[in-house]
Amino acid sequence: MLKFDEQKQLDSVNGALALRSRIEEIVDAICAEGYKNICWLGIGGTWASALQAEVHMKEKSAIELFSENAAEYVTTGNKRVGKGTIVILSSVTGSTIEMVEGVKKAQADGAKVFGFIDKAEAELAKMVDYVISYPANEQLKFFMVADRFMKNAGEFEDYDEYYAEMDAHLAQGLVDVEKAADAFGAAYAEKHCNDKLHYFVGAGNQYGSTYSYAMCYWEEQHWLRTKSIHSAEFFHGMLEVIDKDTPVTVFVGEDSQRRLSERVAAFLPKVCANYTIIDTKDYPIKGISEKYRGSISHLISHAVTQRIDAHIEKINCHPMEIRRYYRQFDY
Amino acid sequence: MLKFDEQKQLDSVNGALALRSRIEEIVDAICAEGYKNICWLGIGGTWASALQAEVHMKEKSAIELFSENAAEYVTTGNKRVGKGTIVILSSVTGSTIEMVEGVKKAQADGAKVFGFIDKAEAELAKMVDYVISYPANEQLKFFMVADRFMKNAGEFEDYDEYYAEMDAHLAQGLVDVEKAADAFGAAYAEKHCNDKLHYFVGAGNQYGSTYSYAMCYWEEQHWLRTKSIHSAEFFHGMLEVIDKDTPVTVFVGEDSQRRLSERVAAFLPKVCANYTIIDTKDYPIKGISEKYRGSISHLISHAVTQRIDAHIEKINCHPMEIRRYYRQFDY
Repeated sequence: MLKFDEQKQLDSVNGALALRSRIEEIVDAICAEGYKNICWLGIGGTWASALQAEVHMKEKSAIELFSENAAEYVTTGNKRVGKGTIVILSSVTGSTIEMVEGVKKAQADGAKVFGFIDKAEAELAKMVDYVISYPANEQLKFFMVADRFMKNAGEFEDYDEYYAEMDAHLAQGLVDVEKAADAFGAAYAEKHCNDKLHYFVGAGNQYGSTYSYAMCYWEEQHWLRTKSIHSAEFFHGMLEVIDKDTPVTVFVGEDSQRRLSERVAAFLPKVCANYTIIDTKDYPIKGISEKYRGSISHLISHAVTQRIDAHIEKINCHPMEIRRYYRQFDY
Repeated sequence: MLKFDEQKQLDSVNGALALRSRIEEIVDAICAEGYKNICWLGIGGTWASALQAEVHMKEKSAIELFSENAAEYVTTGNKRVGKGTIVILSSVTGSTIEMVEGVKKAQADGAKVFGFIDKAEAELAKMVDYVISYPANEQLKFFMVADRFMKNAGEFEDYDEYYAEMDAHLAQGLVDVEKAADAFGAAYAEKHCNDKLHYFVGAGNQYGSTYSYAMCYWEEQHWLRTKSIHSAEFFHGMLEVIDKDTPVTVFVGEDSQRRLSERVAAFLPKVCANYTIIDTKDYPIKGISEKYRGSISHLISHAVTQRIDAHIEKINCHPMEIRRYYRQFDY
């Protein structure tokens, strides 16, 4: 299988899950001390992850929480961020300017910052109040933090049961999804590698991944044009530009917003002959209970899109590492 | 001038501004009674307006406030919405299903709802706790509510001075902007009426209007394809698909996020020869102080896009009233 190292992926996910004891220490200490609200801070792909953490928590939490785009926070500010605010963020490089400025401002405003900074030696890693350095698995890290806050607030009764299943089965399950999705990924890549404009639609914790898949993968890494839209919003304008030939992909997840995407999936066949439904339900994961699948739907669809990406990269002879403009010159 | 009735527009804006005494009565009564937080509820275009109200308030307010997409609220819920929550919304038809369901849920959750329902006889108008029925001017209505809440919270000292200027000069000022922008609108429409994909970029209170201009005007009313993106996010993926011929329009406003859009405006000439900058600064309004222009930037850019729309509609022989799918059949 193209660009696929099973052991490496198992190790990567299991290593991320193993961060949980450290995450619990940090969150438990914060909770013991008391806090006012939680701010998920990000930009670009990390902002998309912040949106996922936010919608994930909304499923069950009454904690005051919100996501903030770092650039907006730095310019407009947010007066809810101050003493008692816990800012949570992730950064691969630890050098993204909006994030560095955002952390400075948050701390100046009185907040404490908990950062997942992949590079331990980065500026950001030294600035934040709590740091964990471990590569990739951003959503998983965020959700572990979110879940611990909710458990401590009495909002996640079966936390231990949930994580027992994740620890035992998630890594292998996601590897199995990739294997199951590879043929689909190859066919999809073949069909859509030259699309002039591809529409991606999703809801719930799939919205963040839909937004980031469109922008951080197709636009940034494949240089293919896209528009992403929330499934609910699709029906309030965007539907009018869909015709028989328009390429549209809907990500259908299994959280509370599933029916918003199902509605799009049911609408499309009436007006379009070039749509794809990626339904996480088509990818069972052994050992993980039905009731927990909503919280990992975005990881399942990500495993599917990984296969698409590997094939598009090869077909289009376009290495995903190269950038036309990003960090290539001053702007 | 095409599709332009000066007196009607003056009356429309002045009539909206005249709602302020009624708005003040309602908001003052709510504040006297006490409230916990404010939720701006919307879907599609009204959700875009909710985002504008949210970012407008963030400029100066420490009140707990957030915007909610009605469909997301109905499915996922929001545990911060309950007793003490004031939900504010606007609906032209008063029959949009997500909004009707959203109001039912909010009230069941214990919240009070303040609705601007254009049609006084609509279902929604009877359901909400406080209602004002007056056509159009959604943003203006929302901002008047936001401003009153902020004034009552001691966050808007020069409220009276601000509204004295608005009452005296806004309506005429926006009419003057339309007149000043008409030749530009015609040339822009001529150039872009056949675009296969047009990118719209904006920030601050221009982001909601950018999102809604792309989706509710070009997609829904002109059947032209678009992507809208926040100016801050533009640099985290989308920039890679811009080349010499890509049509991009940047809305540059005058609120705290101005510099985020200025950055895009400065970047584009380096890689693109088909961009347009619509800077509200190019449209002075007599009688309105410099320091207040940030709060009306989105109204100025809307006056400019009104001129574009009038010309695109004519050139493309596509009446803006017609819908291909929306409310045409069950879906």
